[in-house]
Amino acid sequence: MAKLKSKSDKTASSSKPKKYVYAFGKNKADGNAGMRALLGGKGANLAEMTRIRLPVPPGFTISTEVCTHYYSNNRRYPAELRQQMEEGVRKMERILGKEFGNREKPLLVAVRSGARDSMPGMMDTILNLGLNDQTATALAQSSGNPRFAWDCYRRFIQMYGDVVMGVQKLPEEDHDPFEAEIEKLKGELFPGQKEVDDTLLDDKAIKQLVNRFKKLVKDRTGKAFPTNPWKQLEGAVGAVFGSWMNDRAIVYRRKYHIPAEWGTAVNVQAMVFGNTGKKSGSGVAFTRDPATGEKVFYGEYLINAQGEDVVAGVRTPQPVSDLKKAMPDAYRELKRICQVLESHFTDMQDFEFTVEDGTVFMLQTRSGKRTGMAAVRIACEMVKEKLIDWQTAVNRVPAEQLDQVLAPIFDLKALKTTKIIARGLPAGPGAASGKIYLNADRAVEAADDGQKVLLVRVETSPEDLRGMIAAEGILTSRGGVSSHAALVARQMGKVCVCGAADIHVDYAAKTVSAGKDTFKEGDYLSIDGTSGEIYGGQVKTAPSEIIQVLVHRKTALKRRKAYQNYAQLMDWCEQATRLQVRTNADSPEQVKNAVAFGATGIGLCRTEHMFFEGDRINAVREMILAEKVDDRQKALKKLLPYQRNDFRKIFQALDGRPATVRLLDPPLHEFLPHDHAAQSQLAEELNLKVESITKRVHDLHEFNPMLGHRGCRLGIVYPEISEMQARALFEAAADVQKKGKPTRPEIMVPLVGFAKELELQIEIIHRVAKEVAQEKKTKFQYLVGTMIEVPRGALTADEIAQHAQFFSFGTNDLTQTTLGMSRDDSGTFLPDYQELDILGSNPFASIDQQGVGRLLEIAIEQGRSTSPDIKLGICGEHGGDPNSVKFCHRAGLDYVSCSPFRVPVARLAAAQAALADSPPKAKPKRKKVASKRG
Amino acid sequence: MAKLKSKSDKTASSSKPKKYVYAFGKNKADGNAGMRALLGGKGANLAEMTRIRLPVPPGFTISTEVCTHYYSNNRRYPAELRQQMEEGVRKMERILGKEFGNREKPLLVAVRSGARDSMPGMMDTILNLGLNDQTATALAQSSGNPRFAWDCYRRFIQMYGDVVMGVQKLPEEDHDPFEAEIEKLKGELFPGQKEVDDTLLDDKAIKQLVNRFKKLVKDRTGKAFPTNPWKQLEGAVGAVFGSWMNDRAIVYRRKYHIPAEWGTAVNVQAMVFGNTGKKSGSGVAFTRDPATGEKVFYGEYLINAQGEDVVAGVRTPQPVSDLKKAMPDAYRELKRICQVLESHFTDMQDFEFTVEDGTVFMLQTRSGKRTGMAAVRIACEMVKEKLIDWQTAVNRVPAEQLDQVLAPIFDLKALKTTKIIARGLPAGPGAASGKIYLNADRAVEAADDGQKVLLVRVETSPEDLRGMIAAEGILTSRGGVSSHAALVARQMGKVCVCGAADIHVDYAAKTVSAGKDTFKEGDYLSIDGTSGEIYGGQVKTAPSEIIQVLVHRKTALKRRKAYQNYAQLMDWCEQATRLQVRTNADSPEQVKNAVAFGATGIGLCRTEHMFFEGDRINAVREMILAEKVDDRQKALKKLLPYQRNDFRKIFQALDGRPATVRLLDPPLHEFLPHDHAAQSQLAEELNLKVESITKRVHDLHEFNPMLGHRGCRLGIVYPEISEMQARALFEAAADVQKKGKPTRPEIMVPLVGFAKELELQIEIIHRVAKEVAQEKKTKFQYLVGTMIEVPRGALTADEIAQHAQFFSFGTNDLTQTTLGMSRDDSGTFLPDYQELDILGSNPFASIDQQGVGRLLEIAIEQGRSTSPDIKLGICGEHGGDPNSVKFCHRAGLDYVSCSPFRVPVARLAAAQAALADSPPKAKPKRKKVASKRG
Repeated sequence: MAKLKSKSDKTASSSKPKKYVYAFGKNKADGNAGMRALLGGKGANLAEMTRIRLPVPPGFTISTEVCTHYYSNNRRYPAELRQQMEEGVRKMERILGKEFGNREKPLLVAVRSGARDSMPGMMDTILNLGLNDQTATALAQSSGNPRFAWDCYRRFIQMYGDVVMGVQKLPEEDHDPFEAEIEKLKGELFPGQKEVDDTLLDDKAIKQLVNRFKKLVKDRTGKAFPTNPWKQLEGAVGAVFGSWMNDRAIVYRRKYHIPAEWGTAVNVQAMVFGNTGKKSGSGVAFTRDPATGEKVFYGEYLINAQGEDVVAGVRTPQPVSDLKKAMPDAYRELKRICQVLESHFTDMQDFEFTVEDGTVFMLQTRSGKRTGMAAVRIACEMVKEKLIDWQTAVNRVPAEQLDQVLAPIFDLKALKTTKIIARGLPAGPGAASGKIYLNADRAVEAADDGQKVLLVRVETSPEDLRGMIAAEGILTSRGGVSSHAALVARQMGKVCVCGAADIHVDYAAKTVSAGKDTFKEGDYLSIDGTSGEIYGGQVKTAPSEIIQVLVHRKTALKRRKAYQNYAQLMDWCEQATRLQVRTNADSPEQVKNAVAFGATGIGLCRTEHMFFEGDRINAVREMILAEKVDDRQKALKKLLPYQRNDFRKIFQALDGRPATVRLLDPPLHEFLPHDHAAQSQLAEELNLKVESITKRVHDLHEFNPMLGHRGCRLGIVYPEISEMQARALFEAAADVQKKGKPTRPEIMVPLVGFAKELELQIEIIHRVAKEVAQEKKTKFQYLVGTMIEVPRGALTADEIAQHAQFFSFGTNDLTQTTLGMSRDDSGTFLPDYQELDILGSNPFASIDQQGVGRLLEIAIEQGRSTSPDIKLGICGEHGGDPNSVKFCHRAGLDYVSCSPFRVPVARLAAAQAALADSPPKAKPKRKKVASKRG
Repeated sequence: MAKLKSKSDKTASSSKPKKYVYAFGKNKADGNAGMRALLGGKGANLAEMTRIRLPVPPGFTISTEVCTHYYSNNRRYPAELRQQMEEGVRKMERILGKEFGNREKPLLVAVRSGARDSMPGMMDTILNLGLNDQTATALAQSSGNPRFAWDCYRRFIQMYGDVVMGVQKLPEEDHDPFEAEIEKLKGELFPGQKEVDDTLLDDKAIKQLVNRFKKLVKDRTGKAFPTNPWKQLEGAVGAVFGSWMNDRAIVYRRKYHIPAEWGTAVNVQAMVFGNTGKKSGSGVAFTRDPATGEKVFYGEYLINAQGEDVVAGVRTPQPVSDLKKAMPDAYRELKRICQVLESHFTDMQDFEFTVEDGTVFMLQTRSGKRTGMAAVRIACEMVKEKLIDWQTAVNRVPAEQLDQVLAPIFDLKALKTTKIIARGLPAGPGAASGKIYLNADRAVEAADDGQKVLLVRVETSPEDLRGMIAAEGILTSRGGVSSHAALVARQMGKVCVCGAADIHVDYAAKTVSAGKDTFKEGDYLSIDGTSGEIYGGQVKTAPSEIIQVLVHRKTALKRRKAYQNYAQLMDWCEQATRLQVRTNADSPEQVKNAVAFGATGIGLCRTEHMFFEGDRINAVREMILAEKVDDRQKALKKLLPYQRNDFRKIFQALDGRPATVRLLDPPLHEFLPHDHAAQSQLAEELNLKVESITKRVHDLHEFNPMLGHRGCRLGIVYPEISEMQARALFEAAADVQKKGKPTRPEIMVPLVGFAKELELQIEIIHRVAKEVAQEKKTKFQYLVGTMIEVPRGALTADEIAQHAQFFSFGTNDLTQTTLGMSRDDSGTFLPDYQELDILGSNPFASIDQQGVGRLLEIAIEQGRSTSPDIKLGICGEHGGDPNSVKFCHRAGLDYVSCSPFRVPVARLAAAQAALADSPPKAKPKRKKVASKRG
């Protein structure tokens, strides 16, 4: 041996088999919670729970590296895997004193997927693996419960036949073929009876079903159902890996930006049985309420059931609080486990358990998905409980979920006049009102048509995902708060009421009925995901409590917990953040809201929005139709007082905060009517020939208006427009300053690609500022800058920065030009692009960091090279997207600007980005953190 | 003094006056030919000619720094200028023994502008400055020619009154006010007589004119005409600097990319007089014929005239060869000067001279503007004469002028049936046929309407520049081969016939008549700028001799000088060049032409052009209208044989050269009819409902088609299209290979912004290539690459290069996206942009080096970082633009691709770029160069 080793260390080390299988059991584990990437979330936490002596059935995890190897090697496994799996099974056998395939003490296992991030309902699970005619007989004997044993076997064939061997409902069939066999047998055994309960089938009947199932598999697949447990295991592991690339998994990963390369792990674990009788059961529970965040032991269980029954939502389970009476010992044990879990993982946990003949077993734990509302509450309360520090609390609230706390609730007055037709379980808080659709495709179609949609299903499955994304809310008649519908809705921030047993969903008739009321597809229903109430018809929604405090100044509500937690979180954000958050606002109302949400000023005031209002649009049109400079100036003079007044109100609302005001941007034809009738009317109003209007519209027509005569190109060709706008702005500022309020205008020249464009526009602005300052005997503190929104602007930022006092990145247009992709036209190919994984996420929603982001980095570097103190910001949709905000922080911007209601989200993202700059030195231990906060 | 100096050297040195005035005279000069930037072209060469002892009247040059100072200091001069000018005048006085303002021996001067690059007709000149009543009397006495003296004074007041004091024709006047005074006086002196010749006015009459002119100036300006020569000089210098910023100068600079910052110099030079009698005259001459390049003493002169009379083209001058008889001594002297000039400047010279009483004086020399044809001939012949080396010869031909040698000539057969209505001077070679317009504005308008236009004028002036640019050719009834019309036409490569005295141009009637023939505006005329012939009506044009040799294979013409010089030049280019030139071609004919011009392959074959031809368009439409993949594939199958056949012919024409073939690029709606009638017809032909076509057209409508569903986005959503195209290509390649000809397809995926796009399309191409190779039992040598035409492609070139074997920069689209500027829509603001100097040149014609060029550099660096051997090229309009070609060379591209007829231009530019990499170590001296070439 020593000889061999010394001969070639290299050979020795490279021939040392790579570890693919990680065992756990009997308080020892190869893995731990830190190994999520390798073992998946489930596997890592099974190992961790084993280590902290929680009751976990033994097993092993096949690492995600096997999945990666599998897909990069033409679906083949590493050579070492088989032997390591055998060793894994042997360990379980030693711990339990059972043997895989043994005809007396057979070891049965569950095979479950487990990706790095949990993907609820996406991956497939096989229970009771290891059963065949011999081992089933053994199980019947050892358990003394033949019906239980054969039912396990029956379930195993059904699951395995479906998932591994592909026996599924054919298009021409009405029912699942296995279920059809059950119904058929019931018909034979209980002729003439309808709705025969499963419990009426005795062990013999079930044994008969087992045989029929095996025949079904043989008939459908041409292959016999495998009897060798090892073969069974191999098939199940393959099915888990295979399901990583199924359509549902791909759709899910796209929505949540999970890279395909991560792969999934596979967990093979000894079976425990929640279906051995009345002292058994399976459940899913949370250490706190995932909907509200309240600190209660929360969840549900099914008596005498296997775990999958709970999640599947087929039977409506009981709340876990019922266990207190039904199995007091198990209840006490579970409460203890809750405490251990929270103090160990320092986060709210979502766990699965099975009680087998009174003994509790833990099958999984993970950080629980929660609503935005719950996330805020849990984060705040855990700080108070000294479980975490405030920095961790800030990081615990997913920024994209924060707007859930701002989501509307039903208008209380409107509610009083609307009938509650049924109640269900409150599974996704908020209020939603919409036209009902009973099928995902039709729901998507209606939503695409611009309708507000409620998806109503008996229960949801991953196939419904697209429909759930499209819907305002989800209503199911079956399934509990941990059913598929509830889990997914909560994660997406959708309003959800589930398990509303009193409603009847008729897919064929496309109706939903509750008592005597029947609603057809397209009729309105309204659901309250906080109370579980279901209303017939449309109900007006009202703002959330936080909105009522901040926007509607209902100060009385300030003492409410929801508001206080929100305010606490925002305070912490304020402490952490470097990146300022401004708002995109064109009206004083928007400014007030944004300021209430914590905006530090306006990042983008689009002046053209003001042009459309009221009777001023005709002055705008007169200006556009003018053929001579004189006429144009006359029309502009009419516009001046309107615009001055708009600016005055905005400055007042800002109360001294800075306001970035963009000069006129859109192409002029946007202001003219395009149909003949409207043109005729306009001609009459302006006393012009309709032909001259038609001609002007025709002249202004552009092939690619996005790349046409707009932005500063307007101000260059018609400098009198910029002049009027500058005058309106400075006159307004002068007026407001006279009343003792300071103003801080920041004038932004749009679409600059050439330094000279900016230079020419700045000349006008400075001249007008000087004129107005003299006329009004005041002084202005103002900046002039530009919007960088075409690549040339970014590429020549060094030249442009010599004239600009600030850059604001207009990433909407910059995305369109950098990608050569029109936002308005991309609908025809973007879905394919996302399907094919060409794009991670919609580049118009979240900044394309490799492309557009790279250009931003170039512009920042170039700009600072000639103007080190230049102020840098971003305006446009991306300013309210958490990932984009974090990117902006890393890129070194000074501020982002977003719509008023996105300000809190952006503030939270900015704070999280700042905290990521200086991560805590070590993983904070509970006690230490506690003393720190004390 | 010593004390002062030691006190502060700094003060002393900074108080040492900056030199603004550079004197020349008596074989000595402060300046030399190398100081163009400082002294302007004219000033530098006056100094140089003085140094080499040519007869130059003494004077001085005010440097361009004064102009720059003037414009950057609110039109004020440097303080030191006045004194330095005085010293300059004093030097002239000493040399000539005359004195400025002296009443006995008055010094008179000419004040002329002189920019770095000559700007013909743009800047203003004042002659005879220094005259007033006293000095005029003195000149009358000293010359013994009172009429001459008073006529000089009359001219001076007229010029100065116009240019410096602004006495010009008012809109309500029919004639120039000075000319009107002359006519009025003639009427008084010779009542009843029409067309009284100027010579009939004697010295008294002219003296009377002088007084009337002075009164006119006073009446019009309210100011007396200045009598102090120093005041006169100050005014004249100011007028020259002022004219640097006049509209005409700005238009000219824009066209020729001359920066405004260069400024102009002012030359003040002692007057010599070509108008003292019959032994005097003024002329403009060339050391070789600037139209053909022939080595003859060429030019023209006016007897008894001042220099400006020649250039103004008011009287038609005589050829310089006439001097041989008229003034043999002067003729011999001028021939000697020609030789001295060419051997000293080693280039063809264009010079101005004056003969005063038999003595020759040189007033200017410069490298002569020449036609493309002349440039090639002179370059080749000067190498033979050992005046220059071949590298210099290559650099001597402006690349943008080379296509003049390819310009059409009249079809000889067509000519025989067309009447010559008149003859003029051949002033700009080539043949042009077009509708006549007598006014620049109307000519521009007609050209904008797509008409071929001839601009016909009595004579042209800088105001006509826009019309000349718009016209195919220029015809004037007055003025010689160095008139404004001739000079400008030659420079622009326009066909020009001038001084056609037999035609009568009637501006009021808008007619041109020649004998009995009268042509109205809009009628056709044709002119031959090589022979000077003018034809009534439209004449078919025929290709140039070089085209006949290369394209039409008329090998007999190979011995012609024009072809031989061209071929020689191209041989030299071949020796010098590194950058390959390919062609954009979609048909075998285009390929053949391009190869004849020296293209090394196809750089861009646009497959969609093939889609429009003949009956295949309906198959294309069927494909687009297909709603299912099956139907689309059926339609594609119909297209396959067409496309295969196209490719086959192209491969045959290429004869083994590489062919970059781009997959389908334009948005599909481009292939569908947009009006209802055509849609109805199509519906009938395809047996479809017209509604379905209308709907599809509507569905395919895009707001910004340039940024829409096109390029590889088509192949991603409809992979079957890419598959068909790849199959057609490889099957064609296989067929051609079977016949023994190699093929080198390079398949190009358009509009790639994401590496994955390319990856997906490449998968298809490789698969199809493999399939076809197996089916046809052959092998393919092919490349797959992409067009970089959106900024994201350039920014992520490192990722994309991992999949691409080549990049071709699609700078057309890259310009549109980088600048955010639609080529089709930019017409509304680009003229203003050029007017305002925001853009140097049209970015769609010449690559925007700061913006688009920067992106190219990034892409090249990024691309080579992951794929060092990647092949890099450019396709699109810029590939034929000399400046862009030179940029591409510097950027390190492997090839450019342009339209077939631009290939020679691109090759020349590429050679010049390569020569610029290794410039000759020292300025080659004549003798040395000669021995080198020997």
